[in-house]
Amino acid sequence: MASSSPVVDLYNLSNYTFYKKDPKIEKDTSVHERLARMRFNYMKEGMRTTVAGILLIQEHNHPHLLLLQIGNTFCKLPGGRLKPGENEIEGLKRKLTSKLGCNYPDRVPDWQIGECVARWWRHHFENKMYPYCPSYIKPKECRMIYMVHLSETGYFAVPKNLKPLAVPFFELYDNAQRYGTVISEIPLLLSRFQFNMFNNN
Amino acid sequence: MASSSPVVDLYNLSNYTFYKKDPKIEKDTSVHERLARMRFNYMKEGMRTTVAGILLIQEHNHPHLLLLQIGNTFCKLPGGRLKPGENEIEGLKRKLTSKLGCNYPDRVPDWQIGECVARWWRHHFENKMYPYCPSYIKPKECRMIYMVHLSETGYFAVPKNLKPLAVPFFELYDNAQRYGTVISEIPLLLSRFQFNMFNNN
Repeated sequence: MASSSPVVDLYNLSNYTFYKKDPKIEKDTSVHERLARMRFNYMKEGMRTTVAGILLIQEHNHPHLLLLQIGNTFCKLPGGRLKPGENEIEGLKRKLTSKLGCNYPDRVPDWQIGECVARWWRHHFENKMYPYCPSYIKPKECRMIYMVHLSETGYFAVPKNLKPLAVPFFELYDNAQRYGTVISEIPLLLSRFQFNMFNNN
Repeated sequence: MASSSPVVDLYNLSNYTFYKKDPKIEKDTSVHERLARMRFNYMKEGMRTTVAGILLIQEHNHPHLLLLQIGNTFCKLPGGRLKPGENEIEGLKRKLTSKLGCNYPDRVPDWQIGECVARWWRHHFENKMYPYCPSYIKPKECRMIYMVHLSETGYFAVPKNLKPLAVPFFELYDNAQRYGTVISEIPLLLSRFQFNMFNNN
């Protein structure tokens, strides 16, 4: 039916256990360095495709987004760059395992990847991204943002240099200055979803 | 498949014929008046539900959104307020016919309503809307934005006091100052769609 919304189940943060694992050192120490590496890779491999996952929990019946904080301020979604030719879903699973996956044999994650909720384009070698790409632009990056459905409980292992945060939608929305456009727009992108809130208490 | 995107067919603006019909006088002459009427209706009927339609065409292989301009600056999506208890899809069809429908018997529109792409909430009696509603808020309005799929050709009749405009996505995006948040965010909300561009020439 045209009027039905997709439903997503959300559980309390306390249903999930977070471990630490070896740090994943960031490849770049500055925006300038990052754009230079992008330019270099573009010459070798053409447009880069990156993927990121939306992992949600709830507190006080309000959806929260799982972010990874680097240093004191910068936050990012779990995800990363695909290998040339790699399938998006497989690549996202690989990246989620690298950023969040437990290594214990019985706690290996079985990621449930949902639909793509947004596609962002980097038109030029600069920070700004756009949600469309005119035909006369040769884009430098395409970033696809996917829903990731969590089970009722789960185990995550996060690299020591990253700090997992659960940030409420009301804090993210309209706050591009703190979280960047891609993250701050997620509450809007999910406004068409219906959230089923499950409470432990 | 999780990685497939919904596909939308877009045709040139010249495939559609626009007629004029009797004006639809706006109920309010100022934002202040509008909020006062909202408050009055809220006391009688509770939260209002409004619906709006996204109608797209393409020019130069770039998607354009159909807007209705009132006066010299203000633009809005075709749509309006549902009657208490009215079904959203039926209500949107009624509103689209009132704002865009031809009266000629053989040109009566058969609206193809697609999925809901966003839900906005008015938390208080003010202009600002949010893409979420915390449980402690008693919302004053819920606005649902739907895709409307156009056929290859079509006839529209627009009230004389409204001017139909086809505005390119690159002009809408990041331009809340000119178009308001609800409209300027549409390119992002549709970034997950794949557009099939059909050209006449």
